[in-house]
Amino acid sequence: MRIEILCTGDEILTGKTVNTNYSHMAQRLEDVGLSVTWGTTVGDDRNSLVTAFRQASERADSVIVNGGLGPTVDDLSQEVAGQAAGVELVLNEGWLARMQEYYSRRNRVMPEVNRKQAMLPKGAEVIDNPIGTACGFAVDIGSARFYFTPGVPRELRKMLEEQIVPRLLKASGLQGVTRMKRFHSFGIGESRADELIRDVESLAPSGGVKLGFQSHYPQLETKLVARGDDMDELEREIAPVADEIRRRYGNFIVAEDNESIEDVILSRIREQAGSLAIAEMFTSGNIAARIAPLEGAETLFRRGVVARDLGNLMNSVGLDAPEIADGVSVETASAVAGALQTESGASHALAVLVDLDEGEDKMEFGGNVCIGIAGENGTAVRQARLLGGRQWVRLGAGEMGLDCLRRYLLGLPVDERVDFEKH
Amino acid sequence: MRIEILCTGDEILTGKTVNTNYSHMAQRLEDVGLSVTWGTTVGDDRNSLVTAFRQASERADSVIVNGGLGPTVDDLSQEVAGQAAGVELVLNEGWLARMQEYYSRRNRVMPEVNRKQAMLPKGAEVIDNPIGTACGFAVDIGSARFYFTPGVPRELRKMLEEQIVPRLLKASGLQGVTRMKRFHSFGIGESRADELIRDVESLAPSGGVKLGFQSHYPQLETKLVARGDDMDELEREIAPVADEIRRRYGNFIVAEDNESIEDVILSRIREQAGSLAIAEMFTSGNIAARIAPLEGAETLFRRGVVARDLGNLMNSVGLDAPEIADGVSVETASAVAGALQTESGASHALAVLVDLDEGEDKMEFGGNVCIGIAGENGTAVRQARLLGGRQWVRLGAGEMGLDCLRRYLLGLPVDERVDFEKH
Repeated sequence: MRIEILCTGDEILTGKTVNTNYSHMAQRLEDVGLSVTWGTTVGDDRNSLVTAFRQASERADSVIVNGGLGPTVDDLSQEVAGQAAGVELVLNEGWLARMQEYYSRRNRVMPEVNRKQAMLPKGAEVIDNPIGTACGFAVDIGSARFYFTPGVPRELRKMLEEQIVPRLLKASGLQGVTRMKRFHSFGIGESRADELIRDVESLAPSGGVKLGFQSHYPQLETKLVARGDDMDELEREIAPVADEIRRRYGNFIVAEDNESIEDVILSRIREQAGSLAIAEMFTSGNIAARIAPLEGAETLFRRGVVARDLGNLMNSVGLDAPEIADGVSVETASAVAGALQTESGASHALAVLVDLDEGEDKMEFGGNVCIGIAGENGTAVRQARLLGGRQWVRLGAGEMGLDCLRRYLLGLPVDERVDFEKH
Repeated sequence: MRIEILCTGDEILTGKTVNTNYSHMAQRLEDVGLSVTWGTTVGDDRNSLVTAFRQASERADSVIVNGGLGPTVDDLSQEVAGQAAGVELVLNEGWLARMQEYYSRRNRVMPEVNRKQAMLPKGAEVIDNPIGTACGFAVDIGSARFYFTPGVPRELRKMLEEQIVPRLLKASGLQGVTRMKRFHSFGIGESRADELIRDVESLAPSGGVKLGFQSHYPQLETKLVARGDDMDELEREIAPVADEIRRRYGNFIVAEDNESIEDVILSRIREQAGSLAIAEMFTSGNIAARIAPLEGAETLFRRGVVARDLGNLMNSVGLDAPEIADGVSVETASAVAGALQTESGASHALAVLVDLDEGEDKMEFGGNVCIGIAGENGTAVRQARLLGGRQWVRLGAGEMGLDCLRRYLLGLPVDERVDFEKH
């Protein structure tokens, strides 16, 4: 089945807003085994919309239109949909009542302009939007089915998930349910991951598992997707593949599915009735900022310390800087972590020290990273050289610091070599 | 002139990569007074590319094609361009020599596959790419001029700026040069900014200044664009408009043009031969992370301290927590800033304390922000209530902290009410 996505609105067309609705929709369709074949972006312009609807209807079987369902005069989707489908707009009393209720629950009267949001092409199928006033709908234009969705990301995502994807799966003849399994790893580059596990799909009993990667440096996401008649069957299909990926990736998997490395760290510390403190140099608070603001972290995160200068950092945890005068080293990292643990009273302390290169910020620019962890099972250290420019070094050092802490908390070796480090 | 953007590549089509190349191109064209009328996204698929080229050539005068100029077999742009233009591909000896030189400068031999990158449609105009091996080119397809650009963002941006924009301006009959003036502000929402300055365009002597906004919460960017025959004339055109914007926005302008609020703060501290320390609660290191990693900050940024608990934060700057037991307040913020200034030896200390609401993370969720600054001109404090959910509060509190510091350093009042705060 040929599926297209048609995004409307001047904000998107002019680039004022980066089109993350598009990438979200396309990814979600890929996740369930559907594919987008074409993307179109047009502004709030009647002629462009008419042409875009017509051309999409000639190329595709299904078209998801995003945006243009709002109450203002530049929201043209219903009107142009009616025109393209050759039908008039009629008031949907059910949706009008829903909107009036929506407003009255908020102790407000529905503004008259919102009435426009209940005007749908005659014969359109209503697609529910339980969290907003923009009414989704589906209508045939030419031989293609058009699905109209709101531009507000939260509303779009919910409607896509609960309403559009099931309809598209049905229309595409892909019956049944979809199961996705995700692995988040740190330390394996996409090309090596591909070499490492490209043959695992064949381990699925019925061969119905599709493998995919998505790189978000420094993490890599590995996805398995299967579709079938029931979830138990899919579990059996995916399980041997997932097990083999776990075996091959080993300790490099930092989290699975909706968990993050931060979640894993926090829940492990919580289980141990522990607490955490973090000392940083060039990462400059980025590591603390990934942990401290999370819900539940307020009671576990004791202290973060940032200094660009090693002497300042040491002073700030009560160390006499000249005592250890050999600069950034695993010994210093260990000393800083130990002192921070004592000073803060936290059960665990992480120190991520970076000795940055001097000179121009280019691909060859790098830094030496020294990581120290002090915890209830003694001290652990890790050293690595990272390259790729200032931003890359900062991201890599932060991730490596958190990953070492995760490994320490889980009793895994902290010093397994990662693909991003250089000798 | 009707301009279209056509993005190619499976990574973009499937949403694996968010299409920031599109938004960058569209924004830059808007900046110089050109408009994009249509955007298309297709994958590395011959049939889709042929159709997309043909349809774009029927709608547009100029088309920018992005991606597909690489050396691998799935890079199809030259080939399909030749097919659509009805000409064969011929080897461009000049570009081949450029690539060989590019590799030899890096002490490498050009791989044979790269030869493909020098195969251009016969009669194509070469468009220089001084920083990569993908050769840009322009060719007519139907009655439209197609400009082919590389997918690598750095290469695209340079080519767009130096090669494509001038050609498009010329083709559109928009002669001369473009001058853009940008203001970055904090505290004025887009709708109020629009009310406040919507009439300022009329102050341009020849009426040739165009006003635009781009919101990046919590900052707002206000742009003035003028085009004409020479820069001096444009300066005279823009100056009265810019002056009036400065007058109306007043102290809410945090930086102009390519400067950022962080730059303004760092350069002011550098001028005063000063240094900086920052204490944070719920912003969790985000404020330090905006300042400390910048080039030049290594000698000015002394220390950052993060704690989610006020008592912990106070202890970490040497204060006895029970001494000031009234929780988050301007008095506490002032005390923390003062103690941090003393402890760190920095000339200036910023403390941003947040007393976060309890309960569900929704629009009505907020926090009370108390900011304290200790510096060579004594202490300053600021209090505000921010709403909009956890993420919004964190962003707003961080920005307000930096803005208070900027104001303090420039001798401006730190407590002017901003649009985002509630009573």
